[in-house]
Amino acid sequence: MSSTIHSTDEEHQTKEMDIRSLSSSRRHPQNAPHIHKVGVPPKQNLFKEFKATVKETLFADDPLRPFKDQPGSKKFVMGMQTLFPILEWGRSYNFTKLRGDIIAGLTIASLCIPQDIGYAKLANLDPQYGLYSSFVPPLIYAFMGSSRDIAIGPVAVVSLLLGTLLQNEVDYKADAEAYRRLAFTATFFAGITQATLGFFRLGFLIDFLSHAAVVGFMGGAAITIALQQLKGLFGIQNFTKKTDIVSVLHSVFGAAHHGGKKNKKFFWVPAIAPLISVVLSTFFVFITRADKHGVQIVRHIEKGINPSSVKEIYFSGQFLLKGFRIGVVAGMIALTEAVAIGRTFASMKDYQLDGNKEMVALGTMNVVGSMTSCYVATGSFSRSAVNYMAGCQTAVSNIVMSFIVFLTLQFITPLFKYTPNAILAAIIISAVLGLIDFEAAILIWKIDKFDFIACMGAFFGVVFSSVEIGLLIAVSISFAKILLQVTRPRTAILGKLPGTTVYRNIQQYPGATKVQGVLIVRVDSAIYFSNSNYIKERILRWLMDEEEQLKSSFQPKIQFLIVEMSPVTDIDTSGIHALEELHKSLHKRDVQLILANPGPVVIDKLHASHFATTIGEDKIFLTVADAVSACSPKLVTEV
Amino acid sequence: MSSTIHSTDEEHQTKEMDIRSLSSSRRHPQNAPHIHKVGVPPKQNLFKEFKATVKETLFADDPLRPFKDQPGSKKFVMGMQTLFPILEWGRSYNFTKLRGDIIAGLTIASLCIPQDIGYAKLANLDPQYGLYSSFVPPLIYAFMGSSRDIAIGPVAVVSLLLGTLLQNEVDYKADAEAYRRLAFTATFFAGITQATLGFFRLGFLIDFLSHAAVVGFMGGAAITIALQQLKGLFGIQNFTKKTDIVSVLHSVFGAAHHGGKKNKKFFWVPAIAPLISVVLSTFFVFITRADKHGVQIVRHIEKGINPSSVKEIYFSGQFLLKGFRIGVVAGMIALTEAVAIGRTFASMKDYQLDGNKEMVALGTMNVVGSMTSCYVATGSFSRSAVNYMAGCQTAVSNIVMSFIVFLTLQFITPLFKYTPNAILAAIIISAVLGLIDFEAAILIWKIDKFDFIACMGAFFGVVFSSVEIGLLIAVSISFAKILLQVTRPRTAILGKLPGTTVYRNIQQYPGATKVQGVLIVRVDSAIYFSNSNYIKERILRWLMDEEEQLKSSFQPKIQFLIVEMSPVTDIDTSGIHALEELHKSLHKRDVQLILANPGPVVIDKLHASHFATTIGEDKIFLTVADAVSACSPKLVTEV
Repeated sequence: MSSTIHSTDEEHQTKEMDIRSLSSSRRHPQNAPHIHKVGVPPKQNLFKEFKATVKETLFADDPLRPFKDQPGSKKFVMGMQTLFPILEWGRSYNFTKLRGDIIAGLTIASLCIPQDIGYAKLANLDPQYGLYSSFVPPLIYAFMGSSRDIAIGPVAVVSLLLGTLLQNEVDYKADAEAYRRLAFTATFFAGITQATLGFFRLGFLIDFLSHAAVVGFMGGAAITIALQQLKGLFGIQNFTKKTDIVSVLHSVFGAAHHGGKKNKKFFWVPAIAPLISVVLSTFFVFITRADKHGVQIVRHIEKGINPSSVKEIYFSGQFLLKGFRIGVVAGMIALTEAVAIGRTFASMKDYQLDGNKEMVALGTMNVVGSMTSCYVATGSFSRSAVNYMAGCQTAVSNIVMSFIVFLTLQFITPLFKYTPNAILAAIIISAVLGLIDFEAAILIWKIDKFDFIACMGAFFGVVFSSVEIGLLIAVSISFAKILLQVTRPRTAILGKLPGTTVYRNIQQYPGATKVQGVLIVRVDSAIYFSNSNYIKERILRWLMDEEEQLKSSFQPKIQFLIVEMSPVTDIDTSGIHALEELHKSLHKRDVQLILANPGPVVIDKLHASHFATTIGEDKIFLTVADAVSACSPKLVTEV
Repeated sequence: MSSTIHSTDEEHQTKEMDIRSLSSSRRHPQNAPHIHKVGVPPKQNLFKEFKATVKETLFADDPLRPFKDQPGSKKFVMGMQTLFPILEWGRSYNFTKLRGDIIAGLTIASLCIPQDIGYAKLANLDPQYGLYSSFVPPLIYAFMGSSRDIAIGPVAVVSLLLGTLLQNEVDYKADAEAYRRLAFTATFFAGITQATLGFFRLGFLIDFLSHAAVVGFMGGAAITIALQQLKGLFGIQNFTKKTDIVSVLHSVFGAAHHGGKKNKKFFWVPAIAPLISVVLSTFFVFITRADKHGVQIVRHIEKGINPSSVKEIYFSGQFLLKGFRIGVVAGMIALTEAVAIGRTFASMKDYQLDGNKEMVALGTMNVVGSMTSCYVATGSFSRSAVNYMAGCQTAVSNIVMSFIVFLTLQFITPLFKYTPNAILAAIIISAVLGLIDFEAAILIWKIDKFDFIACMGAFFGVVFSSVEIGLLIAVSISFAKILLQVTRPRTAILGKLPGTTVYRNIQQYPGATKVQGVLIVRVDSAIYFSNSNYIKERILRWLMDEEEQLKSSFQPKIQFLIVEMSPVTDIDTSGIHALEELHKSLHKRDVQLILANPGPVVIDKLHASHFATTIGEDKIFLTVADAVSACSPKLVTEV
């Protein structure tokens, strides 16, 4: 079935050595032809093939690999360790690590407390819910998560997204209880979504939100949040609830006219460390009673740790579906952020992170969170970076932070009564401005213009419209790019690099020369139904262009069309049809179709469909050089 | 910026000739090293790049090519010829062609008249609407279409689809007028959809319905229609309106009990040519008055040509949206069928078919049709094949057919009164059974198992559920395949073919040998956000697998990882990030990352992102062989 290739051409040096025979120092006799066939891989049965595909799609990371060849009891221990990585790394935990973790934990706690109070307001929830979400979820994560650097808790972008989506359904001012219950419902389903994706190993779905789109989305959300926080910073009363920049700017400039002056003394605060400024400003307000002169303060934070909220989740009624929908969106965004952070730090410290396991951990943490009065928590960019820089060693830093939050909830929340909103606003602004990644945007511009469009689309979508629209634009552009990739693959005309037998794209290598009477086209993609017609027509168009040129310069016409198939990793029935049609069209033009280096899957299918027989098995070659030397004997004799 | 490559390795024979210098017979001095760089293509500006992408996506067939360098008046003439191809081929029309077209036209007319009457019933419309749709649309198509072989008119699958979708909205028995008006509305929007796709050159969107899915869908629809027609064939009274096989079989077997016998005399008819059997059976019924003994007959067909239906189209109200939705679906399916037919015959006779122009023609024809009491018309498989075999030369055969239908409508429709429904049912069954393409299904099974799943999914979806569900399954599976392709590209370990410098997949070429201390991985896809993480992790996994094996056999560890980038046609920012992370991970393991043969776009982006500098420009090679010889000097010295 497979075609026999004589490789007496220039590419195969007769003096060259067989690597396999290095040890025996056996040499091929001079000038003897080496015979290589285009390999047909051993036939696999359907079940094996299917199993391999499923494995590669869903279990690409081979999660069961360490379980192989282990006794039953060991398997159980390993299973528990897989589910709770703390059982594994906990055994080698020591005092040095604890010291690092305590310092890091205290640092992120001091950062998270003011942030949490502010973020809860972004989600239109009372301040204590932010603190609740920094108590339970980090604890759960510490036992189940495998990232050592991520800091768990509420984050700005998810809070804003959740606030916007929930407010679309229930007005938090009109019905605070329904709003809060819907928030817990959404959190529950966010967790379920995350855990499900992880459990069914569908984590790769979040890869469909491209890096560029995330950069744009985050930047846009950061700007929107920062502008919204100007409300708190200036103490503007009737600030817009809408998230688009026009309404925000309108409110800011509107307010600047009547009452923009009185809070100017707070402009210096963003530079000071968050907690210190909170403490100082709270004390200051308490002493001066500035709240009586127009300074907005927190007023009230509920004391005590998380109450149960199991009964508040809507498991029926019209809010069930709404909560589910909001939860899925918020859960996916939270996941994207957490996985991006996890991956970044894992690659910095070079440890492996199992994305699917992470999702199960994050999902469980949010499900438990939804039952203990928390809203969607995830990994925070700003706090994770601080955690890393403060020298965290393991997830114990999250436990330390959680403990500090617990103490805060138990004992000192009443003290936050006089904390001015402006200071919280300033803290949020300084936190979210870190999300605007100018360097990344510039790099994206330099590397890939299409990515830049996705990035800007998401950015302007969020800034000028809303977080949902921005998200929609980001996902749409990402998908458009994938569709473009699968419908319009690249093709290239190859030429011979002088002095070699290497054939390369003549646009990349202007020195590469075409072979007379032969047109060599490389197809740079698997040939599938989505692109088979395009590829066929593109190849014919290359041929027509070439023939036109040759005709105008009175050169001999093309007799052989070599299709370099190296990058064609797969072909389906539509692809085979397209090749058949190409063969027919070429036949009518007296051009011979020749294939070079089809891969294992392709050669298999060429045989299965009898296309190999149709064009002749002697028309399939191992390399372009082989094909050229076979189809242009004149050139061969001249060499 | 570009890396310099010394090509003194085995791949570049010093005795070899530079093709460019063949004429001058200049030879490179023996043993002089040839220097080749990895080419960096000339920098294009953003606008040019963007323009090229848009051109390749939307204007891949370069439709304006013939217009170049033509004077204004000539451009106008050519523009008219583009819109109305008849102006072009009409000039070389002659008597020989006319003879072929008349014979073919008469043949397809004799086939279409009974089919039309039957298909109209599939769409729950009165029989004359089928004939109307074979009068106006073929005329329009003859002037605007570029296929020479397609036969235009109502077709079975679209009629069934339209009937099902319309019936979901309005019951044709309860409100025949509203039903008919909705049918015209749907037809109008089907035409608009088709013309719009063509005009905006989005024709490639229909490529997303894969060949395999179409085969399955058509087969399923054919079986459903055939089973439904058993109603007419057996004369069963209370037949189900549902299209799923369970209800159909239930009705058939239910009816078989009480009244299955009386029409057995009609079992012989499907073998006889349609029109003759219609004439004979009509005559037979008229003589015997079998209609009085339970034989169902057509009863009434309106006489006269198409009345105007402009005012019947819903341009407002709730039916506007419904008609639009149904029209889009029906229009897409009709388009898929017509384009598939057009392409098949175009490749058989080797002429070019402009898909987008075809869509404009089909769309215009349906828009005009919707205003002249026609429902969605498209190219018919059965009649186009007959047209081709009867020796049609141009679209004039459609004009001839249209003329015969005109005569029929004007003069002989009353004669169809006594035509038995059973004969129409038999004609439809014999027509649709041709849509069941067993050979294609078997070939699909042989070539591509995944395609076969799509095919069977569509088939069983239609047969056991409904045409919409079948269609949904077909589209979903097609998309799943694309997603799989972009998220899980193939990778392969390369080995050296003994006696050559060619490196190939060791699974395909078991004779290929690995190079000691070097792992060569080929990535078989562009590296995009959707697969960049997978690719990075897959490469690391290859490395870990390899090192495990080497460790167990006490062989030296891997020092160099060569990534063969030939098939990597593009890379985006996420891809660059993945490479950076790969580089870091490898660095920690003391493995050197080396790239071989990055393409023009990739090398450009490697430089733009400074990744080329990060890994060192001397780590980027023209070929795998260059890379191997550079990174394993031991092997080089031994050779």
